[in-house]
Amino acid sequence: MNRQIVLKSRPIGAPQPSDFDLQERPLPDLKDGELLVENHWLSLDPYMRGRMSDAPSYAAPLQIGEVMEGETVGKVLASQTPRFAPGDWVVGRGRWQTHAVLSAEQGRKLRPDFPKPSLALGLLGMPGVTAYTGLKHIGQPQPGETVVVAAASGAVGAVVGQLAKQSGCRVIGLAGTEDKCRYVTESLGFDACLNHRASDLVPQLKDACPQGIDVYFENVGGRVFDAVFPLLNDFARIPVCGLISFYNATALPTGPDRTPLLMRAILTKRLTFRGFIVTDFLADWPEALQALEQAFTAGTLQYREQVLSGLEAAPQGLIDLLEGKNFGKVVVQLKPEDA
Amino acid sequence: MNRQIVLKSRPIGAPQPSDFDLQERPLPDLKDGELLVENHWLSLDPYMRGRMSDAPSYAAPLQIGEVMEGETVGKVLASQTPRFAPGDWVVGRGRWQTHAVLSAEQGRKLRPDFPKPSLALGLLGMPGVTAYTGLKHIGQPQPGETVVVAAASGAVGAVVGQLAKQSGCRVIGLAGTEDKCRYVTESLGFDACLNHRASDLVPQLKDACPQGIDVYFENVGGRVFDAVFPLLNDFARIPVCGLISFYNATALPTGPDRTPLLMRAILTKRLTFRGFIVTDFLADWPEALQALEQAFTAGTLQYREQVLSGLEAAPQGLIDLLEGKNFGKVVVQLKPEDA
Repeated sequence: MNRQIVLKSRPIGAPQPSDFDLQERPLPDLKDGELLVENHWLSLDPYMRGRMSDAPSYAAPLQIGEVMEGETVGKVLASQTPRFAPGDWVVGRGRWQTHAVLSAEQGRKLRPDFPKPSLALGLLGMPGVTAYTGLKHIGQPQPGETVVVAAASGAVGAVVGQLAKQSGCRVIGLAGTEDKCRYVTESLGFDACLNHRASDLVPQLKDACPQGIDVYFENVGGRVFDAVFPLLNDFARIPVCGLISFYNATALPTGPDRTPLLMRAILTKRLTFRGFIVTDFLADWPEALQALEQAFTAGTLQYREQVLSGLEAAPQGLIDLLEGKNFGKVVVQLKPEDA
Repeated sequence: MNRQIVLKSRPIGAPQPSDFDLQERPLPDLKDGELLVENHWLSLDPYMRGRMSDAPSYAAPLQIGEVMEGETVGKVLASQTPRFAPGDWVVGRGRWQTHAVLSAEQGRKLRPDFPKPSLALGLLGMPGVTAYTGLKHIGQPQPGETVVVAAASGAVGAVVGQLAKQSGCRVIGLAGTEDKCRYVTESLGFDACLNHRASDLVPQLKDACPQGIDVYFENVGGRVFDAVFPLLNDFARIPVCGLISFYNATALPTGPDRTPLLMRAILTKRLTFRGFIVTDFLADWPEALQALEQAFTAGTLQYREQVLSGLEAAPQGLIDLLEGKNFGKVVVQLKPEDA
């Protein structure tokens, strides 16, 4: 039997536990070219909130009753394709369920000596490649520049900041608790990290960025962006990777409409705002994964995981993630014996 | 004696004739490396409104009492530099005055066979190069794509659209009168042009862009942008060249604050918004001027000038330009015998 969590109802505002439903279904028979995967780890990521909504986005929304979207890493139990054998570790969009049927094209096989399977959902997977490609292609940090990273202790932000440091930049993080900020400076080596809930965030950020801001890696939006905005330098680059502060919003902020301020700054400061998702840079995946794994193995990239236990923990895990209550990359452990 | 128009007071909202002052000053003596130019033509451009304000921008504001900023083309009367001789035609930032003293580095000499001096202020000068570089570096139009051009009959927009047509694009203009729209389609060869004052602009634009919009060349902002925004395709590029609808604004529009809508579209559609001014692409000037002149000489680039007579006409000319009352590239003729 396959245990699954499906979308029961579309959230209005923050998702509620009642928006999810746990169900059991028999495993389907494998067709030619398919493999059956036992999911060991499930990734929780902010983009999942978008899939629960039917607002237009870069991917089709989930249907009501559909198994929640998500990346998993697991072990092949059975294979109808020569590209995978039972026992192989495989990463894919295995969704919120204990078992997944993937086509051979949908799975990425991990080498037997891959450092740690769950890393394929974070530093050495989609979030790591997101950080690497967004920074490289859009941020384009130059030595001596100031890079500000929103959600700095998160799965993407932590990698962005460490890579920017390695590019010779001054790197300032923004995070939601004092603990996170301490981790960002002490373990990840950012030059500074500010609590974005501080009432004096604006002057704090100004002090931390005496040369202004050349790259702002946007994961958050809202008041974090508002603090960054006046400090952007001429020719600053803003990779727009996420806007987590908006995902649960049910209405626009009250006026006035500040769009003209943003457009005027784009013009007069010659800013570049560019949105991206990780699949926009498919050609970069091999290079990115190799560079990230080398740095991790060499000990020059730090990484923090928050592990939740069991499929049933996933809904609250996502609810918490959207409110910034996580600390590091959130993964759900679906098979206890891997602990 | 040098007749000059100076900034008398900073406008609040739309500039008024009383914000300008005409004065006469003796011509200064030339220093080593300088040339004295008799200005024959003065260019009027929307950016001048920004210089009259002391809001931060890419260039320092004019001081009260300073001669209004502007490009001119004129004839060298006297030269203290071997790079120019009396009788040479020269383009430079000669300001709103009958005579200018330029350093040799500030002047660009026109060849004796240059088609027509005033063209060096428009198609074959700053506005033309603005169109060329912004479209090339930011718009990056591909054959078959849809390009929408704001202020399509203006000095920049007219060139953008014609170049985009030559790149194999479907090109839709937006302009402020029926006459302008007719000119844009019949003389400039755009596929369509819509009056941006039409009450049904949004459905009209949707009909005109059945494949959505891949490049939006932004000169205007406001309700023109609002009509374009929902039609932007994934990976659309938006060169932000001007925002004329905001220049006279004294307050932000009423709410709600729509910034989150813009940021969310940047993310989910992976849009690129990038501001620029023509001097950001200095290395491209020779290539751009050569390409534009070749096309003009070959008859494949059309061009329309609106000529105002005499320095005294400049203030009202700028006031009208900011309200879209011009038709084509506005130049002020300072020496009647060139008519």
